[in-house]
Amino acid sequence: MEKSTEKWIVEEKDFLLPEPLLLDCGKTLNGVSLRYETYGKLNADKSNAIMVFHALSGDAHICGYHSPEDAKPGWWSDMVGPGKYIDTDKYFVICSNVLGGCSGSTGPRSINPDTGRMYNSDFPVITIRDMVRAQHALVKSFGIEKLLAVVGGSMGGMQALEWVVNYPEMVRSALPIATTTQLSAQGIAFNWVSREAIKYDPNFKNGEYTAENVPDKGLATARMLAHITYLSDESMGRKFGRGLQKSENYSFNFDYDFQVESYLEHQGRRFVERFDANSYFYITRAIDYFDLASRYKGDLAKAFAKVKSSFLVVSFTSDWLFPSSQSITLVRALLKNKLEVTYVDIDSSYGHDAFLLEFETLGAMVRDFLDNEFKKISENS
Amino acid sequence: MEKSTEKWIVEEKDFLLPEPLLLDCGKTLNGVSLRYETYGKLNADKSNAIMVFHALSGDAHICGYHSPEDAKPGWWSDMVGPGKYIDTDKYFVICSNVLGGCSGSTGPRSINPDTGRMYNSDFPVITIRDMVRAQHALVKSFGIEKLLAVVGGSMGGMQALEWVVNYPEMVRSALPIATTTQLSAQGIAFNWVSREAIKYDPNFKNGEYTAENVPDKGLATARMLAHITYLSDESMGRKFGRGLQKSENYSFNFDYDFQVESYLEHQGRRFVERFDANSYFYITRAIDYFDLASRYKGDLAKAFAKVKSSFLVVSFTSDWLFPSSQSITLVRALLKNKLEVTYVDIDSSYGHDAFLLEFETLGAMVRDFLDNEFKKISENS
Repeated sequence: MEKSTEKWIVEEKDFLLPEPLLLDCGKTLNGVSLRYETYGKLNADKSNAIMVFHALSGDAHICGYHSPEDAKPGWWSDMVGPGKYIDTDKYFVICSNVLGGCSGSTGPRSINPDTGRMYNSDFPVITIRDMVRAQHALVKSFGIEKLLAVVGGSMGGMQALEWVVNYPEMVRSALPIATTTQLSAQGIAFNWVSREAIKYDPNFKNGEYTAENVPDKGLATARMLAHITYLSDESMGRKFGRGLQKSENYSFNFDYDFQVESYLEHQGRRFVERFDANSYFYITRAIDYFDLASRYKGDLAKAFAKVKSSFLVVSFTSDWLFPSSQSITLVRALLKNKLEVTYVDIDSSYGHDAFLLEFETLGAMVRDFLDNEFKKISENS
Repeated sequence: MEKSTEKWIVEEKDFLLPEPLLLDCGKTLNGVSLRYETYGKLNADKSNAIMVFHALSGDAHICGYHSPEDAKPGWWSDMVGPGKYIDTDKYFVICSNVLGGCSGSTGPRSINPDTGRMYNSDFPVITIRDMVRAQHALVKSFGIEKLLAVVGGSMGGMQALEWVVNYPEMVRSALPIATTTQLSAQGIAFNWVSREAIKYDPNFKNGEYTAENVPDKGLATARMLAHITYLSDESMGRKFGRGLQKSENYSFNFDYDFQVESYLEHQGRRFVERFDANSYFYITRAIDYFDLASRYKGDLAKAFAKVKSSFLVVSFTSDWLFPSSQSITLVRALLKNKLEVTYVDIDSSYGHDAFLLEFETLGAMVRDFLDNEFKKISENS
């Protein structure tokens, strides 16, 4: 990793898990590899490491550029980088593409070492906890005993929560943002319909599609649907309203007439260029299955019984996919365990996507929370 | 129409429009026919007629049974019928299947009299106003000069509003329920994705499908998506939560695991048995295009300038498809015109579907409002 005067060039790396990965479904995955990136330097006592987790469609590339030709920096570059809110001049930041993903880590389109062929539908159904188990091996490989923080929005927040629950000794603080402790019935329903759209694409072939004929129409439809759930009624109204795309009058046909239709089409088209339908299947299922309370007979507070981390819990007022009430449920369970919790419900009209957009408010809080946590270590040592 | 001791048998009828129908798109439809039903008796001075409008997937069959073998009565039979809130012992109630529909009225699967073949994609893009124009001819055919009331929920409410705006002299009172004066960007977006799911079904063939190979998978997906928008997060949580369908543990596959998934599948399957994909295309487009203010340069109040009707406007607190704020926008525009308006935001957790479920609260208000309106006529005469 090096800074250029123009663009900050960062490097992708691969980590091969030294052991087979035992999964929640009971199966074992051999030869699991995680694509990851790191930013900043791990300090001498390895106390400045922060793990960041990406959401459903993200990847390991948080910030910087892979090459001077890259048009865009990583997906959270407003938040993470030298001098940014999560300051890589101060902290060592790690992010890996999730298990099941399609951006370098082992996933359904990887070669199964046992057969020499793509997994496709043979890939086992994974969970958020399985993703975290793989990340745990990566963090251990750095010799890190305790992460300063685990940070993530949406599905990234689910991973942060699984980290504190499964490795309570290894996490000083957790920042679950715009997330939940269990997916709601409505969330399960949206994921189901998304997968139906993919499943019924004739190219899908029950997951056994070829690289030449991918189910891009089904995947685009799934993405368009999901995209609506990431925005708020208000933000869509302000951004598009009933604005027409091509002329001042209705076309009286079924092409896109409205700007919002054209925008969705564009989002769908762009998505299929970078994402895989099988990964979409597996990752949405992992999200469906996420339910911290279920392993404790529905008693969410018990999930955090061994946890000692401090928490910054953040929700956004217009997020209807993971509404504030779900963060409040989390906060209550944490407080029952007498844990240190700061909770903020940020006033925003951006809906669920606010965690990717509200840098000024979210960023300052995250920065100050991390600074406080880091200061505590210095004072204790 | 007659009452049996067991089941109230009602009859479907067809009305052939005497004139060609000039549409908003500029085209003309010849030989338009409306399937309709009536309940109760038109009184001597024809002052007791109420027109009820169905929503996207409804039909002309509001209440009663078509035959003693029918398992279920019409779609609003808790609301309309002898002794019900809209009392057919007192009022003459009319409902017709909308233009563009697939339950007996002229729609894209009807035979084009000019070609002798099904319209399919040759069917013109219609509007809510076009639907109302056809209904106007039906009402005129009874010799009715003025309807006591126009009543409808969701898309039915849009028709009620087009009635008062287009035929202000013919409507004594209007009851727009769980509706809006213009579809929001979010609503347009959901309709777009629904149509994408149909469009990408290989059976769809741009609307030119055969009766043997209908795009039932795409239509089912569209319906499942729409169905989510009809419920609330809260009602889905209470009805299904994260309940599993088959066993106590996750199946770790992609069949339906959760009750909500199984429920959606069931809804999708049932829907394709009774609904047509082309009608879904055309009717959702009509809903997209619905915007009362647009014909008055965005000034909604002007749309009601010639209106004299009294209004009962009803919204439901958990309806996020047509949220209460949209009914309040309507109420403000009516009040600017110094119209008599009663507005109720009914506390309900049922979401948009509340207009089909909240009979006790909604029904009593509708009954009393209609009684008051009917009494005014008697007092004036």
